[in-house]
This record gives sequence, structure tokens and C-alpha cells, in this order.
Amino acid sequence: MLCIVFEILYVHLKNAHRNWSDFWMSVSLNRSYNLPLNLAGRAFVLSFFFFFFTDVFDEIKCIHLSLFLEEERRMSHMGFRCLEISRWVICGLIGILTGLIACFIDIMVEKLAGCKYQVIKENIEKFTEVGGLSISLILWAVLNCAFVLVGGIMVAYIEPIAAGSGIPQIKCYLNGVKIPRVVRLKTLLVKVLGVICSVAGGLAVGKEGPMIHSGAVVAAGVSQGRSTSLKRDFKMFEYFRRDTEKRDFVSAGAAAGVSAAFGAPVGGVLFSLEEGASFWNQMLTWRIFFASMISTFTLNFFLSIYHGKPGDLSNPGLINFGRFESDSVAYYYYELPLFMGMGAIGKVYLGVALHMKMSKFNVSVCVRYVHRPCLQVMEALLVAAVTATVSFTMIYFSNDCQPLGPEHNEEYPLQLFCADGEYNSMATAFFNTPERSVRSLFHNQPGSYNPLTLGLFTLTYFFLACWTYGLAVSAGVFIPSLLIGAAWGRLCGILLIWADPGKYALIGAAAQLGGIVRMTLSLTVIMVEATGNVTYGLPIMLVLMTAKIVGDYFQEGLYDIHIKLQSVPFLHWEAPATSHWLTAREVMSSPVTCFNRIEKVGTIVDVLSNTSTNHNGFPVVVQVLDSDEPAKLCGLILRSQLIVLLKHKVFVELARSRLSQRKLQLKDFRDAYPRFPPIQSIHVSQDERECMMDLTEFMNATPYTVPQDTSLPRVFKLFRALGLRHLVVVDDENRVIGLVTRKDLARYHLGKHGLEELQLAQT
Amino acid sequence: MLCIVFEILYVHLKNAHRNWSDFWMSVSLNRSYNLPLNLAGRAFVLSFFFFFFTDVFDEIKCIHLSLFLEEERRMSHMGFRCLEISRWVICGLIGILTGLIACFIDIMVEKLAGCKYQVIKENIEKFTEVGGLSISLILWAVLNCAFVLVGGIMVAYIEPIAAGSGIPQIKCYLNGVKIPRVVRLKTLLVKVLGVICSVAGGLAVGKEGPMIHSGAVVAAGVSQGRSTSLKRDFKMFEYFRRDTEKRDFVSAGAAAGVSAAFGAPVGGVLFSLEEGASFWNQMLTWRIFFASMISTFTLNFFLSIYHGKPGDLSNPGLINFGRFESDSVAYYYYELPLFMGMGAIGKVYLGVALHMKMSKFNVSVCVRYVHRPCLQVMEALLVAAVTATVSFTMIYFSNDCQPLGPEHNEEYPLQLFCADGEYNSMATAFFNTPERSVRSLFHNQPGSYNPLTLGLFTLTYFFLACWTYGLAVSAGVFIPSLLIGAAWGRLCGILLIWADPGKYALIGAAAQLGGIVRMTLSLTVIMVEATGNVTYGLPIMLVLMTAKIVGDYFQEGLYDIHIKLQSVPFLHWEAPATSHWLTAREVMSSPVTCFNRIEKVGTIVDVLSNTSTNHNGFPVVVQVLDSDEPAKLCGLILRSQLIVLLKHKVFVELARSRLSQRKLQLKDFRDAYPRFPPIQSIHVSQDERECMMDLTEFMNATPYTVPQDTSLPRVFKLFRALGLRHLVVVDDENRVIGLVTRKDLARYHLGKHGLEELQLAQT
Repeated sequence: MLCIVFEILYVHLKNAHRNWSDFWMSVSLNRSYNLPLNLAGRAFVLSFFFFFFTDVFDEIKCIHLSLFLEEERRMSHMGFRCLEISRWVICGLIGILTGLIACFIDIMVEKLAGCKYQVIKENIEKFTEVGGLSISLILWAVLNCAFVLVGGIMVAYIEPIAAGSGIPQIKCYLNGVKIPRVVRLKTLLVKVLGVICSVAGGLAVGKEGPMIHSGAVVAAGVSQGRSTSLKRDFKMFEYFRRDTEKRDFVSAGAAAGVSAAFGAPVGGVLFSLEEGASFWNQMLTWRIFFASMISTFTLNFFLSIYHGKPGDLSNPGLINFGRFESDSVAYYYYELPLFMGMGAIGKVYLGVALHMKMSKFNVSVCVRYVHRPCLQVMEALLVAAVTATVSFTMIYFSNDCQPLGPEHNEEYPLQLFCADGEYNSMATAFFNTPERSVRSLFHNQPGSYNPLTLGLFTLTYFFLACWTYGLAVSAGVFIPSLLIGAAWGRLCGILLIWADPGKYALIGAAAQLGGIVRMTLSLTVIMVEATGNVTYGLPIMLVLMTAKIVGDYFQEGLYDIHIKLQSVPFLHWEAPATSHWLTAREVMSSPVTCFNRIEKVGTIVDVLSNTSTNHNGFPVVVQVLDSDEPAKLCGLILRSQLIVLLKHKVFVELARSRLSQRKLQLKDFRDAYPRFPPIQSIHVSQDERECMMDLTEFMNATPYTVPQDTSLPRVFKLFRALGLRHLVVVDDENRVIGLVTRKDLARYHLGKHGLEELQLAQT
Repeated sequence: MLCIVFEILYVHLKNAHRNWSDFWMSVSLNRSYNLPLNLAGRAFVLSFFFFFFTDVFDEIKCIHLSLFLEEERRMSHMGFRCLEISRWVICGLIGILTGLIACFIDIMVEKLAGCKYQVIKENIEKFTEVGGLSISLILWAVLNCAFVLVGGIMVAYIEPIAAGSGIPQIKCYLNGVKIPRVVRLKTLLVKVLGVICSVAGGLAVGKEGPMIHSGAVVAAGVSQGRSTSLKRDFKMFEYFRRDTEKRDFVSAGAAAGVSAAFGAPVGGVLFSLEEGASFWNQMLTWRIFFASMISTFTLNFFLSIYHGKPGDLSNPGLINFGRFESDSVAYYYYELPLFMGMGAIGKVYLGVALHMKMSKFNVSVCVRYVHRPCLQVMEALLVAAVTATVSFTMIYFSNDCQPLGPEHNEEYPLQLFCADGEYNSMATAFFNTPERSVRSLFHNQPGSYNPLTLGLFTLTYFFLACWTYGLAVSAGVFIPSLLIGAAWGRLCGILLIWADPGKYALIGAAAQLGGIVRMTLSLTVIMVEATGNVTYGLPIMLVLMTAKIVGDYFQEGLYDIHIKLQSVPFLHWEAPATSHWLTAREVMSSPVTCFNRIEKVGTIVDVLSNTSTNHNGFPVVVQVLDSDEPAKLCGLILRSQLIVLLKHKVFVELARSRLSQRKLQLKDFRDAYPRFPPIQSIHVSQDERECMMDLTEFMNATPYTVPQDTSLPRVFKLFRALGLRHLVVVDDENRVIGLVTRKDLARYHLGKHGLEELQLAQT
């Protein structure tokens, strides 16, 4: 049977590669704009979009727009203090809202899944006696499909970007690559409702990943003090309507999401730092920490009320691993190599998984029905039905009966064909939300599962999880990984006889998750915080380090693969090691379109409309009259700023004729942020084209520059540390030679055979 | 009595201020070089030294010295992989050595203090019956003094920089300010032996702070692959002989130190990041994490063998808070405001403490015996004797007898005048190493202490700790703070009747420590890891945040005060908020001494010898012949590089005459690092003065530059993010206008009334 599966996968993989290039070409030929695209299709168009307007978005440097500088110079000490306080207030709000969302998701899932399992359980009990369990199976499948149908339709038709966990998108966002619509209100709604449906629908998915995305959306919304979708502007927090500030808040939101998901506030902060930040700023870190803390606390507070134990704050996250009592399950140093071995196994095991997932990803997403949301929904339904069927079959054929203890923790113990007072052990793993299954794998008494059950469960759940990953539903990959890891970890523990299986389940879960997401520091802290016990800190660390080292030797983590597939200009931590021989001269784009300090409106409109000048930043120069020499740099102006200027018709001639005209203010730029209109929507008459525009006041007068001999690692460091998007390359005389953008840097990549230049889509 | 104390303090404070300025003048008049100085005196001379040669040390940018660049260009992919592996190996070694040192300190302290308390206990028991307890007192005082004498002599006469915890010094080092001798082998030896003596000598100090310093020294030593003190060069790790790399390893060492001290590997990493790093690099963080992990593990492994329980790894740090069982002491949300109140109290309480400490610091260090190490030793002895006397008196007059339970945890229960089967409760606090006292405050049964005992203990210990701080002994401030906090926290817990006192002791300890050191994220993690229970995460966070917010409103943390007192050019996280109106033009030093690309040796020697050209970096320019215009920038060269060039006589003429002369290699720079000879030691003959030196090959050909209108926050960010030491300010034509150094930036400071310019020592 396994052979057949692999055979199918292999064929798919081949198809994938072929169709991949087809799709690629279709993108390159620019036809795909007109297609109704599904999630990944859209992602591809977006990635294409990135390369078309590599740096279409506002940027950190706009902080140095003269107007901003002027405002900041005018601001008093008190003003800065108020800003600082608003930042804390916003972080508090982010925490509270994220916590509430987590609370809502948790309660809804619990309610819906509870009803579902209760109905099915009663049905199974009824039909176990009289025969005709196939009706129970159908009931189960139908219920699953119903939930998944709702979730799938929302994702596929309303907001395809809400599919998956959203973590790769947030990673890109924090890296400085903006993906359109990723932090909108609609995305949040679809995400939240979608994840409730997916989890209640019994898919092999978790609700933790989407929490991170939700937190980020909340942060992006709250910090701007307005909702563009709802067309409401609260006239608050206007100072924060720029990319740097927004990004800081989004990291706080992501951290609050992690914190709510796992009850791990420190882990959340570390996640944000590990995945996003580059410049470690103490104050920012504290604010992120504050948001995380509030988020866990809010969730905790409301859940404790919901569970009827107000005031008991010991249940801080969506997933709760349950408490590991340290005394009963201490570890010994001779177990450490074993744990590390498990880490390595986790990875080796995962090599297959990832390959499958990649192929799966390619196959299901790019090839089969790139144009058809309805087919996506169908696939989701199919997976839901198959999941129910497989689960049912496994439970049906399992003969692993365990005595029902007096203090049993199982929520829905299925007796099925077991003797009275016993329950079906396979059902505790399958007939449950994944969170509960993980907990029972960690905590059930030794002997609750027999090895065959665990082995079968691991395999089937693994294939289900792989198939589920990449579906157009809103769902995370954390919990399935944990569950698979816990299952084979517990299996290891049982096979080792002397060992406590719960402990090995925990280690297995860590290994599996570490192998997939490749975080070490933050994941260690998250696991430690979720288990509520620091004793396991050291073994978890060792396992994660091993999984990471072994894993990185073979391939990148899941999120990185995801990001790479989308060809996003993602900047890693450091320039490739062997890139020292490259200099800015080789890397830069040249020639660059420059503007004069006082430029004709017609020229500006032409340049902005011309799709072949694909930059977002334009150096402003002073031309020496009657000379062919390249002009001297005097500033840098952004596409978005030019558009605002054009929209408000800030022309020299008009200013002269209409003296009373109100001066363009910072507010105009902020109101336009972040959805600047396209140049096509701005009408410029033929007369106006002859006018002149004075850019002096609006440009960034002190852009960062480098000499042309600067080495690539140095340029890279400047970009990464300062969050740049454009770097002007100048010669000895301060004349513009070229421009380095993210795309120019992201192109270089360290492959197996030294430095490789990625073939990026060229216009 | 309190009034008297305050009176004395006030007088001291006044004296301090007067004498402070005297001392300041003596420093300014440059007389103090000849004095045999004590710790802080030396620190002052050092700080003076900083301003004299503000940036006398090698710098991050030297990575861009052409020779380095050339080496890196020649290096293969494999070469970089080997480097990466050596980095991991070094981090492993750092972890192991730091763990071993921690283990050594712990075992020595336990042995010595154990013997001491055993002897005194027997003596007290003997004399309780027959009378004449004064003999016991004298014995106690003499034993204390003996230990402190050894420690004090070592610190005062051998290596004064080893005094205190060393954390401010390490903070400065990681910030980029190097303090001479701080990472030398001799410092390590004195520090380790000194801390053993101080703790065994019964002073109100801890052994945790010094561990951080020790870890840093180990890291600095191991990573260089040689010991300059021992004159051994292992010819290893030569690539790492530069500031950037060394600093990275030192952060790993500091983290390993924290990790060994508190059994908190994650806390260690966060400490390093919070106190040191600015650019968050994922790989670096993982290496730091690895070092921390190995360090805890090593300590754990050897301690478990020492304690006769090999394989039991549940004792990971020097200080062990003992295990808090979560079920017994859960907290309720209505307690949270209480906790936060305690955080605030911790701070208010601390306002006094810090004032006292500051005055104490000024008084004892600057005024009374700035010239006399022997007086320093005397003061240490006095404190040791007074500590013993006060402790004894407190125990003697205490009538808080508690029944000796069957499973009592007290190591040395003193019966004294209590009935048989009872012990003196005051003695558990005083007659013990501080670590054990903390643990008994956390864990002893409710009712083990009566409120009066705790109140008295808090007050006396507080005064003792304040007096002890600033003594010329090697000792940390963590444990005394924890102990004081635990005492008043437990007192709060007792007064609240319904509450569990142990829990409140923990919160009090967190509040006190947080108020003093002002770390939030790292301290939370450290506390959580040390208690071994995540349940307390949230309340500890809240307490620390409150302590931090309340505290910062009044004054900076202890370490920052310490650093500020030494007038070190320490760069904070961000430029002062209201400094936007300042530009590079106002901030920079001007005019700058520049060199020509081919410069006369005589000129170079003169410039380097001239003490009024106090810079370490010199722009290299191309002079347009027969023109008065400022010359165009073409590079930057460092004092240290020039000295190496002069030493090897790399003159144009000599190269021509001696064709066979070996070319200057990178190795020559590395061998000289980090102790470059002073210019005075290099002999240049009159003939040689007429030679020319070609700097082209050795200068950094692409130095970072900014236009003169760049705002201060932007210059600051560039400095902080890239770890710069020099930034050349140029005009439109790329001509050198000025030079910005750390000192220029560190000068600006946000005071109560807006931006203040610190009066720094001017030559």
C-alpha cells in the first residue's frame, strides 16, 4: 500500500515540476492577471507583482522625508512622551483583542466539536448494538464535510490569502516584503471563522498558526486608528501611519498571537524576534512583551470564567500540554543522546514528509485547478470525508481495548466492541480534537496505548496531515506536527520499556515540530512554557538543536520553502558567505531613472506610468547645465510621495497663481497611506503636463549612499540593519551610478556549489 | 536610630559631592596617573583615558580593511563552513569552561562556608551552656575577616578591576567600549578566588554576578586561541582576532555565565541580548544559546556527581530557588494588583537604597582612601566584622523559636536559648549562606518566621548590603537583593494572613531585583527558570514591569548609574527623542586630521604622537594639487593599523630598495591585536621620517559616510545598528567636513528639562 502511495506521489511530483514551469511561463507572459486565481496562484501573481514593482511600498526611510523631520523637530519632549504612552496603549489593546479572538476561537471550537462528537458518539453507541455502523460513518463524514464546506467556501471565494497558517506571509511582512491584503479586516474574519470550521470539521489541522496571523491583523488595524474596509477613521494614532511603526506593532501582534496560542508570552516575543526583527530595540521588545502578556492574561481570564472557575489563571493558552510533574518523570543524562537521536530521526522522517508536502503543495495548488475555487472546496470536502473514513476504519478495526479508570480523562470514550468498563484506545487518538489527542498522548498512564495502535496512528495521521497541508482552508501545521511527533515519540518510549512514554511523547513532539518549523530558541521557550515545567528545558533544547542541524543539512524549514517557492525578495540574516568578491557595482541596477530637483510634471507622469521603470524610489539630482556628466545626488523620492504630490497638484505654477492654496501637509501623506492610488487613476491634463514640480521639500534630502566598491556583505548589512529599500550607489564625486534594491540582494543565494544567482522573473 | 543613619548618610553625600569635584579636577589636571589608585579611582582614570583617546581601540569596521577583504575573497565555501564549525566548537568550550568554573566556585564556597558554620555552631553550642558567647562572636568575626582579608588583598593589590560584580564593565564591553584588563586571565583568577572568599567570609554578597564576568573572560580567552598573559599562542582561531568576532564570543560567555549562575540558559541568552547586542543575528543567537546550554549542563553534571547523585540533572544553577509546586501555591487574579503594588513598593523602597548606595559609592570610593589599597582592605575587614557582629546580635536577642520539624531543611539549626527540639528562626536567615537563606524564605512552612524577625532582618540586611556594595571585593548584588526582597515579600505575605508567604517572598524578591537591575524580559525568564515553574511567569512579569516603570520614573538602574558615574561613552538604544533638530554638522568633531593617500612618515608620527589629535580613525584623502579646497575622501585608516605599519617600516622607499622584503600580511595585524604598542615605543629615525608611506592597501577604502545635514537620530541609528566607531561627514562633493565618534553621540542625553549636553572631560 505504501508503495502505491509513493508511486502516486512520484507521478505527482513529476507533474508538478512540469506544470510548475508551465505556470511560471504563464506568469512571465503576464497572462495570469485575468484568471480567477486560487490561493497559491494568486501568491504567484503577487510574487510576480513584487518583481514588477519590486519595492512598490512605502519604506522605513520615509521617516526622513523633510516634512516628517520638520514635524519631529517641532515636537516637544512632552509630545514624544505622549507618543510613547500611546504605543503602550496600542500594545495593550492588541493584547486584549488578540486574547479575545483566541478565546472566541477556543470556545467555538469546543462547542462545535463537542456537539459533533457527542452526536456521533451517541450514534455509534446506538448502532454498535444493532449493527449498521456504516450509518455512523456517513454521519461523521457528513458532519465533517458540512463544517469544512463553510470554511472552504469562505476561504476560496472571499479571501484566498486567509488559507493556511499565515505564518510565511507574516514572516515576509516582518522581513519588509508586504503582501497585499494580508493584514486586512476581511482576512481576519475569514481566518477566524475558517479556522473554527476546519478544526471543528475534524481536519488534521491546528488553530494555533492562524492565531499568529490574527494577532498580526489586529495589530495592523488597531495601530492605524482607522479601518479602511469599514471606512471609519477614528482620527487617532495618526503618527503611526507609516511602515516602520506599523511593522513594529505587527511584530507585537504576532507575538501576542503566539502568546495566546501556546500560553507562552516569552516564547511569543522570541518568535517575533527570531522571525521578524533585525534591530533589537529594548523598548520595542518590552512593548512586544507587554502585548504578549496582556494577551495570555485576557485569554486566561475569560476562559477561566467560561470554565466556571473565575480567578484560576492556570490555563493560559489555546493548547495546553497539561502539567508535567517533574518528580515523576525526571530524566537522566544517559537519556540525552537518545533524545538527540530522536531529534535526528524526527528530521529524517521529515525529509519524506517535506518532500511529500512540497510535491503535494505544487500538485494540488499549482496544477490541478489553479483556476477553480470550486474545485478547491471540493478537495477540502474530499479530505474531510476521507479523514472521517480513515479515522473510523482505524477505530473500527482496532482491538486495543483499555480499562476505563476511575479518573479517566477521555472526553468521549468510545466503547465500541470493547468489554464493558473498557474503551477503544485508538479512538482517544482519532475521535478527538487534535489538542486533546496530544494531551492524552503526553499524559495517559503507561500502557494506555499499545505499540501497534500508535504505529498505525502515526502513519495514517501523517498522510492525512500531509494531504491536508496546502488545502484552501484556514489552518495551522503546529498541532498536527506535535501530534505525529507525540505519537511516534510515545511509541519509542514504549519500545524502550524502562522509560516513561509521556516523556518520550513530549520529546518526539518537539523533534517533529522542530524539524518542520526550524526555530530553536523560541520553540524551546514555547514548549517549556506550554508544558509548564522548566525541567524539560535542556532535553527539548538538545532535541531542537539536533533537529535543526540535521534538518538544515538536507533542506530548509517548511516556512522557508514556502517563501522560496513564492520567489519573494526575502532577505535572510546575512549575505551568503562567499559573496565578498561581489561589489555594489555588480549588484546594483543601472542605469537609474533620476528626477531633477525641479522636474516637469509630464516627465514624472511618464516615468511613473512606464512599466519598465520598475522602481519605487527615484534619486533626485542636480544637473550641471550643458554637461553630459552624470548629475550629483541631492535626495531620494518615493513613488508614493510623487503620486500624492500629483494628486494634490503641487505644481510650481499653480502655487504662484493661487497664493491662497493650502500647503500640502503631512496629513495628506498619512491619509493616503497605505493604499496609494495607482498612477493611472490620476488625471493630469495636457496643460498640467507642462508645469513644473519642486521636489525639494518632499524628498529625503539625506539618503543613504555607498561608494561603488562596497562589498556585497556590507551593502547587505546596511540593508538588513537599517531596514532599507533603496540604497543609492555613488561615485567619488557624489554622482548617481546605480540603485540597489531588495531584489538585487535577494537574488544571491548560497547553494550546494557555492554562490548561485537565482533566476528571478524579469519584466 | 534611623534618623541618625540618614543624618550620617546626608553628610556623606555632601562630602561626596565636594570631594567628587576635587577628584574630578585632579583627574583633569592629569596628576592622578602617578597615584596608586584603587578600583574606582582607576575606573576614573580609565574613563579619562576614554576621552583622551576616545576610540583608541580597534573597531568593527576593520573587517573592511582591504587585506581582510582580500582574504575573505580568497576563502572558499569550505573555508567559511570550517569557520562556522570553529565558532560552534569555541562556544562549546566556553560553555564547558564556564560550567566548570561555576562548579568550582560552588563546591569551594560550600566546603569553606560549611566548615566555618560548623565550627561556629559547635562553639556556640558549647558556650550557650557555660556562658561566654562573646568568644563565639569573636570567633565568627575572625573567621569572616580571615576570608575577606584574602579576597580583599587579592582584589586591591593584584587586580582592582575584579572588584564588584563586573556586570557594568561587561555591559560597557558589549556596548563597544573596551575597558582595559577587563577580560584578562589575571582578572578571572582574582575574580574567582575573590568571590569564594567574599561569600565564605559571610559578606552580604552573592556569587552570581561575578559568574557573568567570569564567563565573559573565558570567552575572550578561548576565542583568541592564545593567552597573552601566559605568552602561549596555540595558533588556533586566528581569524577571530578582531573586535567584532571577539565581542560576539564575549556575549556568548556572558550568557553562559548567567546560565551557570541561575540555571537559566534562555535567560542567559536574553540577558546578553538585552544588555549587549544591537543587531539580532539568528545564527549568533543560536550559538549563544548553545554555549548557555552546555554551561548549565556541565555544571549540572559535575554537581550531580559531587552530590553523589550522578545522572540527576535537576540542579542546574548556582542558585537554586527550590521547586515551587504549582498546585499548592496557585495565584488568583485579584492578587495581581497586589503584586504590582509590591513591584512599586520594591522601587520606592529602592529609591532610598540607591541614594544610599550612590552616596556610599562616592564616599567610600572616591573620597576617603582613593590612594590606599590597604585602607580598602581595612574597610572590607571592618564590614566583615560588623556583619558578623550584627548577625550575632540579631540572633542573640531574637526570641523567635520554631519547632524543629522531622524533615527540617535548615543546614545549621541553631538552638541557642530555644527549648530543646526548637531552633532560632533568626539564625536561619543570618547564619547561612545567602543562597540558602533565600531558599528557606521561599519554601519554609508558613509560620516559620514571625513578622518581627523578618522586619528586623530586612532592615539590618539592607543596611549591610548597602555598605557592602562598592567594597573592593569581588561580589555580586543579585543575591542580596533577592534576599532583601524575599524577606519583605514574605513579611507582606504574613501580614495578608490568607496568603502563602512563600509566594509573596518570591514576588518580593522579583520586585526588589527588578527595581535594582531594571531588566524585564531576561529577568522574568531567569526567575522563571530558577523557580522551575512557569505558573509564576505572569505575576513575575507584572511585578518586574511595574518595578521598571515606577523605577525609571525616578532614576536609572544600578548598572546604568554605575556606568554614568564613570562617564563612559555608552550608547543607549536610541538617540534622545528630542534631538531631531541636531544634525551631523553640529555633532561632528571638526576640523579633522586627515592623511594623504601617500603620506610622509614624519607627519604620521607627529600626528600620532600629538596628544591633542585624540582620534583613532583618520580619513585618508586625495589632495587636489595647488588648491586650497578640502580634499576628497578616499578611505579611513586606524591608529592601530598605522602603528603596525610604522613598526614594520612599510615605507615606499624601503620597498623599492629591498625588493626581497616580505609583504606585510594580515597575520602581522592579528599578532599585534589587541595590545598595540604605543607610538612612543616605536623608533623612527630622522632619515625614515623623510620616507613616504602608501596607505592605499591598508585603509578601509569604503568607509561609511553621511551628508552634513543628516539628523542626529539617524546618525545614531547608523552607529548603533552597524557598531561603528567613526563616521565621516562629507559635503556634496565628497570632501571631508568632519568626523563623528562615539563620544560625540554619547554626549547628548535626555534630562528632566529636555535635551542636555553632558559636560564630558575635555583634554
